[in-house]
Amino acid sequence: MKAVVVETPEKITVVERDIPEITSTQVLLKVKAAGICGSDVGIYHGKNAFATYPRVVGHEFVGEVVKVGADVKNAAVGDHIAVDPVVSCGHCYACRTGRHNVCKTVNVLGVHRDGGYQEYVAVEQNQLHQLPKDLPWEIAATVEPYSIGAQVAHQGRLTGDDTVLICGAGPIGLIILQVAKMKGAKVAILDVVDSRLETAKEMGADMVINSKTKDPVEAMNEFTGGEGFNLIYEATGNVNVLQMCIQKLPSPAGRVVVLGFSTVEFPIRQVDIMSKELEIIGTRLNNYRFPEVIEWFKEGKVDPKSIVTNTFPFTEADKAFQYNDEHPENVLKIVLTF
Amino acid sequence: MKAVVVETPEKITVVERDIPEITSTQVLLKVKAAGICGSDVGIYHGKNAFATYPRVVGHEFVGEVVKVGADVKNAAVGDHIAVDPVVSCGHCYACRTGRHNVCKTVNVLGVHRDGGYQEYVAVEQNQLHQLPKDLPWEIAATVEPYSIGAQVAHQGRLTGDDTVLICGAGPIGLIILQVAKMKGAKVAILDVVDSRLETAKEMGADMVINSKTKDPVEAMNEFTGGEGFNLIYEATGNVNVLQMCIQKLPSPAGRVVVLGFSTVEFPIRQVDIMSKELEIIGTRLNNYRFPEVIEWFKEGKVDPKSIVTNTFPFTEADKAFQYNDEHPENVLKIVLTF
Repeated sequence: MKAVVVETPEKITVVERDIPEITSTQVLLKVKAAGICGSDVGIYHGKNAFATYPRVVGHEFVGEVVKVGADVKNAAVGDHIAVDPVVSCGHCYACRTGRHNVCKTVNVLGVHRDGGYQEYVAVEQNQLHQLPKDLPWEIAATVEPYSIGAQVAHQGRLTGDDTVLICGAGPIGLIILQVAKMKGAKVAILDVVDSRLETAKEMGADMVINSKTKDPVEAMNEFTGGEGFNLIYEATGNVNVLQMCIQKLPSPAGRVVVLGFSTVEFPIRQVDIMSKELEIIGTRLNNYRFPEVIEWFKEGKVDPKSIVTNTFPFTEADKAFQYNDEHPENVLKIVLTF
Repeated sequence: MKAVVVETPEKITVVERDIPEITSTQVLLKVKAAGICGSDVGIYHGKNAFATYPRVVGHEFVGEVVKVGADVKNAAVGDHIAVDPVVSCGHCYACRTGRHNVCKTVNVLGVHRDGGYQEYVAVEQNQLHQLPKDLPWEIAATVEPYSIGAQVAHQGRLTGDDTVLICGAGPIGLIILQVAKMKGAKVAILDVVDSRLETAKEMGADMVINSKTKDPVEAMNEFTGGEGFNLIYEATGNVNVLQMCIQKLPSPAGRVVVLGFSTVEFPIRQVDIMSKELEIIGTRLNNYRFPEVIEWFKEGKVDPKSIVTNTFPFTEADKAFQYNDEHPENVLKIVLTF
């Protein structure tokens, strides 16, 4: 079978490998589609603090079961499956308290272990989620990014009463927008690319802010009557944006949810946290949120079609990565097809 | 009547004032005892970002009702009362979502308005809490600082399963220690004053750390087996300590609760927040926690006697402040008597 390997940063090749053997608790999945995430691109460019090399990247993948281990209870040959890429130990503090996505020894398929950019993957049964068979594969590949939207909603305690700011109108920012609008919140979204803000408007954003031409504090005052945003999602990864989100934009009792994982230091002050009982909340991966998202898809509560803008054959992953880098104004989510 | 006024930073005087008039929704309270908090000392030294001058300080006060407004439903002459010093608007986002302690226009008696270091105070009925009549006045004055302990427990989602670090073994740190031990948590406490750590040990601390002689990271490794503290209370106000608490000491899914309100900038990194789903949580004042604390006192679940180390007549507040500054090794809580 063919597999796409990032050998070292900036070096990607298509190699020939054996189809994997499965254990009694695994299924063999024939991969049908796999999304490209910003973090896959980061691994390619050597900018991901968690990744190791060489690596078959891809953590947003779906496929059809072609072989089933003797002890597998939840899948049969022919099933359509979304794979939760999070692997946890089950016994550390995070796992014991129901937070396996931040397991002390968390492993993510496509980051710490080989992922989905290959024709076949052996997957443990506890990572399998059944998909409706009429869901197109390239749409199904967005279940994982939508699980990030479900996770950040949970971490920020998003409700329909909240006035929300989303920083970053990339695929994750737009997914958060869809989730926040589904919950009934009032949402502003900030970016520097007009075409993305245009898309955000079409998806229901109540205000779009191009921070190149509009002062975000002024926008906050207009949008919230000076009260501040109750809930802020920082999805650009830019430390200056996050610093502004903490110091200048939240309401009292506000929450700032941090999606980025930059290692650059930036300054904060105790008084900004204490005086408002501000909460700065990390969010990582997803914590068993696939079933919730698959329900959203079945019920049409979100619009995953609107996120998938391009497809490439998986053997042209290098070209897809390049296109992703060079066309931020055209690309939301590229899905590799098999 | 006599009142203790901080006229400007470093200038404290005892002045003669009229006994206040009350409205129909107020009672007149004859003050019986009032604690000295670090923030009172901060107002005296001009180091409190929230205070205005001239100010009758004191937000930890209790007294006896001597006059009752016509519309007051919850107090009678002779009642013993603890006063919740938090005044809120009732209609901003924080108030609407049950977080009146961070009301957009929050006022605190003794900080934004005159407080308890005077013989009589007019108090709104919604700030009154009934005390048992057999509770000595100087002990009753600690209801307010214990309400901070109740608030931080709530903000940090403290449970008996948590491994907790408290930074600062002053009165608030020791109160948090008592609350954490009451809940069944395993608690380490850090300070630089040995006599305070000795007191913490007597109150049930499972480990005491003098950070002058013991590396806190090493202590964390010993105490938690390298997993990190699940819940950290930063009650020193020192930004270097808080920075260490965020970067080096938490477990995955950990919480760092910020009690200080320094305006000094200090650096943090996104990756430390995101990778653990760390939460940095502000806590301010108390959010309707007096009834809970008065129950603790009635049931003997905490030991407020152990916190009150000294008393001074209220007219000698200047000497009390000075003694508080000069004898950190002897003083936990000074209560002014009337």
